[in-house]
Order: sequence, then structure tokens, then C-alpha cells
Amino acid sequence: MSFDAETLRYDAAGLLPVIAQEATTGEVLMLAWMNAEAVRRTLETGRVTYWSRSRQDFWIKGETSGHTQELVELRIDCDRDCLLAVVRQTGPACHTGRRSCFYTGINAGEELELLKPEV
Amino acid sequence: MSFDAETLRYDAAGLLPVIAQEATTGEVLMLAWMNAEAVRRTLETGRVTYWSRSRQDFWIKGETSGHTQELVELRIDCDRDCLLAVVRQTGPACHTGRRSCFYTGINAGEELELLKPEV
Repeated sequence: MSFDAETLRYDAAGLLPVIAQEATTGEVLMLAWMNAEAVRRTLETGRVTYWSRSRQDFWIKGETSGHTQELVELRIDCDRDCLLAVVRQTGPACHTGRRSCFYTGINAGEELELLKPEV
Repeated sequence: MSFDAETLRYDAAGLLPVIAQEATTGEVLMLAWMNAEAVRRTLETGRVTYWSRSRQDFWIKGETSGHTQELVELRIDCDRDCLLAVVRQTGPACHTGRRSCFYTGINAGEELELLKPEV
């Protein structure tokens, strides 16, 4: 079946959540949002392109930082309201300089820093 | 720092997205939603508990199907508006009987079934 970004289910703001996972290690890097046009641009360019909810603009991941995400495969979930972007991440995915945004664990009721910023 | 579920950032509906990842394989299984009480119940019971947006009720994963998610670790992202639940999944995570909800890939403009239902 031919893929059409319009057939995905977006929320009231026209967005759906996208999980970025590193292809080589399986590490979950971050979650961000796309609209239909961001989905199309990501597929066309092979450069993962989100919609920034704070800036209300397209956000080509790594365009300013150089920490790009090269798309390996985009996958759709059963409800068609969430995407999994399997990527090759250059440098840290998180704006804090950490490999993944999920660097805080909860252990016995305490928050624990699991990852340090990369140099 | 002591963890308090109220310090997470929820959307207008009081929810945040939660990614479930299989601890042993790193496979991304599904994305669902939690409110603060679901976060607390998940941590207290060790059984991953979502908020069902369609039923508007708590949803202890696998309560009816037996396809439970045992919590290994709950992680918070840098913006505190998304969680990663590292789990041990019993049986398929997807209601279609597939291991993961992300069983449809997009390849050269075509949708491709990547996973079949488990027996």
C-alpha cells in the first residue's frame, strides 16, 4: 500500500509524537513531534525533521548543532497516531549534550542521573 | 532528589506520553499515556499502568490479556514531559498480537508489514 502522510492520525494541533531510536544500539534517544509536512520532509530528505511546538516552526534536527539524525526507517504504530524513527544519530541527541534525553532514572523513590553530558 | 509525580509536565488533559521498551532486546514496544496517578501506581506496583484515553480509565497493561509489563526502570526526559518505561513484556505488547505496535515500515513510499502476529 502506498504511504500517504495524510492518513496518519494527528492530534487537535495537527501533530503526532515521534520516538527516535538509534539504529545501531537500540537506545531510545528522544521524543518529539511532527505534522504531516514534517513527515513528508523527513521521508523526502532522509533528515529527520520535527515540528517545534515552542518555536512553531519546522526543526531539522541538528541543523544548528550539527547533531543530525539520518533516517534509517520510519515505522507507524497500530493506531497510526505515533511514529518510530530509526535513525543514525550524530553526536548527542539531547540539547544538554547527553546521548539520550532519558538520562534521569527513578530508583527507590529518588531521581538518579544515568548519563553525563558528552564532551 | 526525591521523585514526585506532580513535578512532571502534563498536557492540557493531564497526560504525558510514555514509551515502553523491552529491557532485554531494546525493542520499542508501544507508546501510551499516563496521568500523575498512573505514574504513582506504576512505581508502587511495578506493573505498568497507563491511562486509557478511549475508556477514560486506568489501564493496567495485560490485566485482561495477560500480556503484562513488569517495570524494570522508569526514566524521565530532559523536559520532564515524556517517560521511558523499560519493561519485561510478557507475550505480545500490541493488541493485534504482534510483539510491537510499530510493525509497519515505510519503504520507498510503500507501507510494509514488518512483523506478523505471534501465535
